[in-house]
Amino acid sequence: MKRIITLAALACLAVGAYAQQALGPGTGIVSPEINPDHTVTFRYFGPKAIKVQVTGDFLPTRAVEYEVEGHKLTFDAPGVADLKEGPKGIWEYTTAPLTGELYSYSFLVDGVRTMDPSNIYQNRDIATWTNIFLISANEGDPGWYYSVHDVPHGSVSHQWYDSPTLGKQRRLTVYTPAGYENGKAKYPVLYLLHGSGGDEEAWSDLGRTAQIMDNLIAEGKAEPMIVVMPNGVWFNQAAPGEAVNMFQPTMQNSRSQSTAEIEESFPDVMSFIENNYRVAKGYANTAVAGLSMGGRQSCMLSLSYPKKFGYVGLFSGVAVPDGNEAAFDAVFAAHPKLYWIGCGKSDGIMVNSRKLKEWCDSRGYPVTLYESDGGHIWRNWRTYLTLFAQQLFK
Amino acid sequence: MKRIITLAALACLAVGAYAQQALGPGTGIVSPEINPDHTVTFRYFGPKAIKVQVTGDFLPTRAVEYEVEGHKLTFDAPGVADLKEGPKGIWEYTTAPLTGELYSYSFLVDGVRTMDPSNIYQNRDIATWTNIFLISANEGDPGWYYSVHDVPHGSVSHQWYDSPTLGKQRRLTVYTPAGYENGKAKYPVLYLLHGSGGDEEAWSDLGRTAQIMDNLIAEGKAEPMIVVMPNGVWFNQAAPGEAVNMFQPTMQNSRSQSTAEIEESFPDVMSFIENNYRVAKGYANTAVAGLSMGGRQSCMLSLSYPKKFGYVGLFSGVAVPDGNEAAFDAVFAAHPKLYWIGCGKSDGIMVNSRKLKEWCDSRGYPVTLYESDGGHIWRNWRTYLTLFAQQLFK
Repeated sequence: MKRIITLAALACLAVGAYAQQALGPGTGIVSPEINPDHTVTFRYFGPKAIKVQVTGDFLPTRAVEYEVEGHKLTFDAPGVADLKEGPKGIWEYTTAPLTGELYSYSFLVDGVRTMDPSNIYQNRDIATWTNIFLISANEGDPGWYYSVHDVPHGSVSHQWYDSPTLGKQRRLTVYTPAGYENGKAKYPVLYLLHGSGGDEEAWSDLGRTAQIMDNLIAEGKAEPMIVVMPNGVWFNQAAPGEAVNMFQPTMQNSRSQSTAEIEESFPDVMSFIENNYRVAKGYANTAVAGLSMGGRQSCMLSLSYPKKFGYVGLFSGVAVPDGNEAAFDAVFAAHPKLYWIGCGKSDGIMVNSRKLKEWCDSRGYPVTLYESDGGHIWRNWRTYLTLFAQQLFK
Repeated sequence: MKRIITLAALACLAVGAYAQQALGPGTGIVSPEINPDHTVTFRYFGPKAIKVQVTGDFLPTRAVEYEVEGHKLTFDAPGVADLKEGPKGIWEYTTAPLTGELYSYSFLVDGVRTMDPSNIYQNRDIATWTNIFLISANEGDPGWYYSVHDVPHGSVSHQWYDSPTLGKQRRLTVYTPAGYENGKAKYPVLYLLHGSGGDEEAWSDLGRTAQIMDNLIAEGKAEPMIVVMPNGVWFNQAAPGEAVNMFQPTMQNSRSQSTAEIEESFPDVMSFIENNYRVAKGYANTAVAGLSMGGRQSCMLSLSYPKKFGYVGLFSGVAVPDGNEAAFDAVFAAHPKLYWIGCGKSDGIMVNSRKLKEWCDSRGYPVTLYESDGGHIWRNWRTYLTLFAQQLFK
C-alpha cells in the first residue's frame, strides 16, 4: 500500500509538471551546484533507486575505438562516478575542482541513462540530449569564452534561402557582429560547417559560436565578421522541427554520402549571403571551416574553388592528398593566408591529418597542424573555433 | 551476475550516447510512431520496469485547481494510460485517432517522470522539458498551422538592444516575413509578450509563431507583419543560456512582480524596432498581445499608451476595470480596431475576462471575448495567436 501511495504521489508531481505557464516549480533540488571552489555537486531524488551514477566529460576518460566506413576512430568515453544516498532519497556526488569549460553529463539510474530533472540546461547532439553546465572561471579559460559577458552582442538569425541547385528552400544560421544593424561597414565572412548528424543549429547551439565571437571581438582578439552556418546535408532542408518532415536525426539519415553536393550547391549559399548582407567579398575576406564531415567538406571546397577562400580551417576532418595532388597544388599556388588543421591526439582522423600536413610540408606548403588532447568531440571543436577565429582577416 | 552484466551493458550504451558527432544511433526504437490513421504508438525499452505509463494532453483531462497570489486558477491535467509490456522489454501503447495538433507527453516509469529517449522533439516550459509530437493532418487543423510547409519562410532573429530605462542590454526575438530582406516595403508590427516564467524564446519555441505566421501569410489569411517577442521580465536580460547568469527559471524568479516596469521600459523596445526595421508606424499599424502575465502587460500597455496600439490581444490575462475606468475610457475613445480577449472556459482567469467584457459592454465599448475549451495552457495560446493574427492590419 505504501508503494501505491508513493507512486500516486510521484505521478501527481509529474502531472503537476504539465501545468504550463502558471506552475512549474522544478524539482526543488539544486543540481548541479557549482561551488565557490569550482567543485560541482550533483543531486538526484531517487528514493527507489538501487544505484545512481553520474557520467560526464569532467571525469577521467577512457578511449573507445570504433569504425565508420573503414575509418578507425576513437572517442574519449566519459568516466562514471557513484552518487551516495543521503536523507530523503537524495543522492549526491561532488567532483574535484574543475577548470573553466562547458561540461556534459547525465545520470545512470540503475544503469538507465536519465537526464538531470533539476537542470534545464541541455544540448542535443544528433539524437541524444545531454545535460550541460558551464564554468566561466578565469578569463582565457575555454569556458570563459562560451559564457555570456556584459559585452556588445551580435545577432543570430535563422534565415531561408533558395537553392536552385538542390531545388529547395533551405535554412541557415547567420551571426552578425554587434554594430552590424546600425552601421554601414562591410564585413568579412566565415562559412562554418557542421559534422554528420548536425544541422544549421549545431554550431550556434553546441558550438557556442555567438558567445565565442562576441567575447573575442570585444577583447579585440578577433576581427568583427559575419559567420554563416548552413545545413551541410544536401537532402535535409533544415534542423528537426524546422523542416517539412519531422525526422529523427541519425548518423544514417544525416550523413552526406559524398561531398560533391556541397561543392555544387555551396555557391547558392554564398550568393544568398553576398546579396543580402553587407559583405566584404574576395579571397582575403572569405574563410571556410568545418568539423568532421564539415572539415572534409571545407577541404573539398578549397580544392574546388582554390581562389575563393583565403582562410581554411579543418577541424577533425580533412581530405587526403592522394589523388588530389593537383588540386592541392592549385590551392597553395593561390597563397592562402591560413591553412589550419586542428585534430585531437586520440582522434582516428589524426592519421589523415598528419598525412596531409606531411605531404604539404614536403612540398613546402605552409600548413598549421594543431594537435590537441582528446578525440572527436565538441569540446575540441569549440577550442579550434576560438583559436582559428583569432587568426582571420588580419 | 546477470543483473550486473545487464547494468554494465546499459551503462555502455549510455556512454556510447556520448560519442559526439560520429556516433549517436538513438535507441533503435521508433517512438512516437504516428500511424496512417493518426493513432499514435508509444514505445519504451524498460526490461526492469514494473509499470510504464504515458501522460499527455491527448488523453482525457481532469481539472486541477490551484491558487497563485490570491487568483484561483485551473489547469487541465493530462490523463495517464498504461503501456503494455511486450517482447524484449519493450512497452507499448497506442492512442485513439488524434486530430491535427501539437501534443505534449512524457513517460512515468514506476511513477518517475521520464523523457522518451527515442524522441528528440521536446520543449521547455519554465523549468520542465516535455516531449512533443506534431500531427499536421488536415489544412485548417491547428497542427497544420504549426507545421513547416513548403511556403515562403520568414526569418527569426535573436537580437540585443539597449534599454536605458533598465540600464542593461536585453535580448529579443524578431520574426520578419518572407520577402523582408529583399524588399523595400514597410511592415506593421505585432508586439507579442510571454507569460510568467517565459522569456524571449517562449513564443517562437512553444508558440510556433514563425510557422503560424508563415502559413497564415502564405494562405493570404494574415497580412505580412513583423512580430517582436521581447523578454517581459524586467530583471532578466535574456533566456537561460543567453544571459550573463546561468539561472534556473522558476515562477518565483521569473514573475514580474508588477507591470510598471514594462510600461516604463517598453518604449525602449519600440524605439529599437522602429530604428532598425522597416516599420509602418502608428496606431493602425501597431498591435500588442500577450499570454497570461503578458496578457495583463498588454492590457496595461494599452491603458498607459491609449493612442499607440490599434490592436490589442489579451490571451488568458487581463486587467480588471475597477480602478482603471478612466484609462479604459481613454483606450476606447481612440477607437481601437480590435480589442480581443481569448480565455479558456476552465481557466481561473475567465472570471476577470468576463468581468472586463461585461464592463466594456455596459459602456458600449466593442470588445470580443473568445471562449475556448480548456484552461491556462499553451495549446490555447497558439490557437489564440492563429485567430488574432488573421484580424490584424486589415
